[in-house]
Amino acid sequence: MKISVLDTTLRDGTQGESISFTVEDKIAIALKLDELGIDYIEGGWPGSNPRDKEFFSRAKDLKLKHARLTAFGSTRFAKNRVDQDPNVKALLEAGTPTISIFGKTWDLHTRRALKISEEENLKLIFETVRYLKDHGKEVIFDAEHFFDGYNSNPAFALRALEAAQKAGADILCLCDTNGGTLTGRVTEIVAEVRKRFDGIIGIHAHNDSDCAVANTIAAVEQGATHIQGCMNGYGERCGNANLCSAIANLELKLGHTVIGPERLTNLAPVARFIAELANLPLRGDQPYVGHSAFAHKGGVHVSAILRDAATYEHVDPARVGNRQRVLLSDLSGRANILYKLKQHGIADRLDEKARGELLERIKHMEYEGYELEAAEGTFELLVREALRPGVRFFELLSSEIVTKVDDNDSLTRATVVLKAQDGIHSATAKGNGPVHALDLCLRKCLSTLYPSIAEVRLTDYKVRVLEPKKGTAARVRVLIEWSDHQRSWSTVGVSDNVIEASWRAMVDAIRLELMRLTETDEALSKAVEDYCWGV
Amino acid sequence: MKISVLDTTLRDGTQGESISFTVEDKIAIALKLDELGIDYIEGGWPGSNPRDKEFFSRAKDLKLKHARLTAFGSTRFAKNRVDQDPNVKALLEAGTPTISIFGKTWDLHTRRALKISEEENLKLIFETVRYLKDHGKEVIFDAEHFFDGYNSNPAFALRALEAAQKAGADILCLCDTNGGTLTGRVTEIVAEVRKRFDGIIGIHAHNDSDCAVANTIAAVEQGATHIQGCMNGYGERCGNANLCSAIANLELKLGHTVIGPERLTNLAPVARFIAELANLPLRGDQPYVGHSAFAHKGGVHVSAILRDAATYEHVDPARVGNRQRVLLSDLSGRANILYKLKQHGIADRLDEKARGELLERIKHMEYEGYELEAAEGTFELLVREALRPGVRFFELLSSEIVTKVDDNDSLTRATVVLKAQDGIHSATAKGNGPVHALDLCLRKCLSTLYPSIAEVRLTDYKVRVLEPKKGTAARVRVLIEWSDHQRSWSTVGVSDNVIEASWRAMVDAIRLELMRLTETDEALSKAVEDYCWGV
Repeated sequence: MKISVLDTTLRDGTQGESISFTVEDKIAIALKLDELGIDYIEGGWPGSNPRDKEFFSRAKDLKLKHARLTAFGSTRFAKNRVDQDPNVKALLEAGTPTISIFGKTWDLHTRRALKISEEENLKLIFETVRYLKDHGKEVIFDAEHFFDGYNSNPAFALRALEAAQKAGADILCLCDTNGGTLTGRVTEIVAEVRKRFDGIIGIHAHNDSDCAVANTIAAVEQGATHIQGCMNGYGERCGNANLCSAIANLELKLGHTVIGPERLTNLAPVARFIAELANLPLRGDQPYVGHSAFAHKGGVHVSAILRDAATYEHVDPARVGNRQRVLLSDLSGRANILYKLKQHGIADRLDEKARGELLERIKHMEYEGYELEAAEGTFELLVREALRPGVRFFELLSSEIVTKVDDNDSLTRATVVLKAQDGIHSATAKGNGPVHALDLCLRKCLSTLYPSIAEVRLTDYKVRVLEPKKGTAARVRVLIEWSDHQRSWSTVGVSDNVIEASWRAMVDAIRLELMRLTETDEALSKAVEDYCWGV
Repeated sequence: MKISVLDTTLRDGTQGESISFTVEDKIAIALKLDELGIDYIEGGWPGSNPRDKEFFSRAKDLKLKHARLTAFGSTRFAKNRVDQDPNVKALLEAGTPTISIFGKTWDLHTRRALKISEEENLKLIFETVRYLKDHGKEVIFDAEHFFDGYNSNPAFALRALEAAQKAGADILCLCDTNGGTLTGRVTEIVAEVRKRFDGIIGIHAHNDSDCAVANTIAAVEQGATHIQGCMNGYGERCGNANLCSAIANLELKLGHTVIGPERLTNLAPVARFIAELANLPLRGDQPYVGHSAFAHKGGVHVSAILRDAATYEHVDPARVGNRQRVLLSDLSGRANILYKLKQHGIADRLDEKARGELLERIKHMEYEGYELEAAEGTFELLVREALRPGVRFFELLSSEIVTKVDDNDSLTRATVVLKAQDGIHSATAKGNGPVHALDLCLRKCLSTLYPSIAEVRLTDYKVRVLEPKKGTAARVRVLIEWSDHQRSWSTVGVSDNVIEASWRAMVDAIRLELMRLTETDEALSKAVEDYCWGV
């Protein structure tokens, strides 16, 4: 069955604590949602803030291929005539084909928030819906707090729906506004409403009980054919039903049509695009679309998916535009590493013994506190060292870093002595800090011999303490991200001295670059890239 | 009804992509889970990696008040006799009162992954459970892939449960290992199993369809009385059922007892503690425990909750140790601070000029890259300095930090000269790294004058780069967490020298402690706590 979908990322989504979109962002997202095959794009509340008003004014020129732009607002204020209500006016001025308005269906709210009688509330709903219908709009009636309302006073809640339907509402959307309803209760209540009302019933779930997606699916199983939510589950408090998950579940598990199987393969890229504009990392563990959604770490899992992916994957990741990944860690057996090496034909270049040694080395490093999952550069270097044992390019003989700090300022000077294939090099440099000073020394020492390392630059630097109870004496893990303008990679160093840990990560990055320059190995690069995809 | 709960954060949780715990972390988490009232703590898979083995060996000395430590493993390997299987041996050697073992219940897996017959599979299950029971263990049988297995071949899946039960398994736990089952189907299948089996039935759900919590609740509604999951929903791929949400739903919405209403008020703090050790930010939008879970941004919502919180809150946040927040999205951070100071009557203690200066100072610091929301200690110090202008306790005159690094080792020595009220002090100390060495010097200099600072210890240390484009020369922000065994706070330092930034954060922490000791001000403490809560 065709289930219509309304995305409210641009309205309810922006009520999430960390979400803020510019008008430009909103336009870009609307176009992307249209491309994905979303039926309704709720663009904002034109009566509530100037940014939403501007969006609708600019959106009039958008050439949407499929989606209907939707403006959101409330029923008229009790004190206003409907044709003089500024909020209703703003809704019409938005110029969208569809309007969704919310009305009260919970007696508590009518009493406490609006302070009006039940009859008056029914009048607000009826008159507003009818007025918008008279102006030729498609109207979605959002029955705010419907589930709480039904629990408190079912007759009151149902009469509100009735008023909207009689006035001509095209869709009656049942909202779990506070997100407090569990799935069993949603099932019962939607079934009851389905029995009493013809026409399109919708569901708008919030995630305060961590059940928003399940509640959405349950409503569809009881006859709802319209769903509302946000991409990536953004939204006020704990967010709205995550449309990525709801759409995929309905399409792949229940055989409904929402955006269709072809456009579904664009789901993960669109989710990433929107996260990008929201300036939030896409949650790695997000179902279907997250980077880790089909990532296998346990050794047992890896050896099984090598035989048959269905053993540990609920759907084929390609159907939602995602893909399988295999991770390394001390939880992983030989199977994980072998998988990576094999996948690109490198396993054969390491004999059984070398492979065993590599695995042991990785396990030992992880035990020490190295985290190779986040440090693909260090992993790549380990593999390259296993392929070319003994190749080191240079050895550190000694180094000294002196920092002077007073109440206002600081100064760091480093001296590095190292041995390269053409002899001993030493350099001294002042730097903003110890990492900068060491970096300058290392480059000075190696620049004649390996001029290309000038391209390698630090792009991010993170430190964490591994044994907090040891206070300032604790071991730290330094994770550094590097770029050579073509690709980026991370390296990791662990030590109880933050400078030594930084030095180790830095040396790994430079050694890796030299390894790469002195051996071009496409298969290996591919394997590593694959391992590191999007990290 | 009492529902028992097994937390597998330390086992399944660590199969999540970004999760890696040291043995220290695992011990600290186990103690915290015990305090929270978790019934079973699944500590790891002793047969699979050295870290888990070490954990169990060290955990033997833990004095758990309530929880039963649980070791996890598989049924014996097909080729081994049960009493000679190394994995089974490792399980017994872990010395835990409870053991959970997983066995195959999906014909696909038995065929494809194990490559054995159905009869042989039943034998593996029966013999392993019986052997562990004979050794006096409580045994949880994790029916791996039970839901997929039931869909594929119900008779096969049920026979596996039967074998485990006949062998004496104490709990039959139905696992949705791939996380692909929707709530309606979980409801049907658990009801069917409940009809056929006496004894305790459990549920172990994964979140690949975004329904893990709903599935857990649905299973309980059908008669399961044991639930498994991870705090914060950590776990392989998309994670396990989020125990924070599941526990709160069962306690607050269905009237079951899991950890009890008193310990439930500790839920949010424990969730934050575990996220801290995982070095992952606690998701703001996480139901019940997230920082945004009861945060209101929409204007309509804010004015309604001022009248009655129930209008937009599904439960009272205090019941899960969380609280209501009102976001001042249109006001700046500065206004937010003033609002907080006012709310507790401290704004009056600062005259207009002092307030203006404080705001200017904060504004300037934030512009420089300080992030005061995450550094409540630095914020508190600023307020205290504004209240007691000129009070500094000590001034740094000079310091020198020398680090020597060679290919294997490193050594750091620091010298600090500072002026306190009783004259000039200087000290030299060797440390594991520069922060450690400086810390030792500072304490040596101040210990006679202020012996109480001995209590202040660093508990976490984080560094991030503020201007990635500047490479190793970029400014960094150092965030340090401190504790004096009674409370903890964070301070922040920004500089282009990581050592100077660390020094600034360190000095702030010590100055703050001295400020506190020399002025007890409850209203101020309250305001600061309020502002910084849970960031």
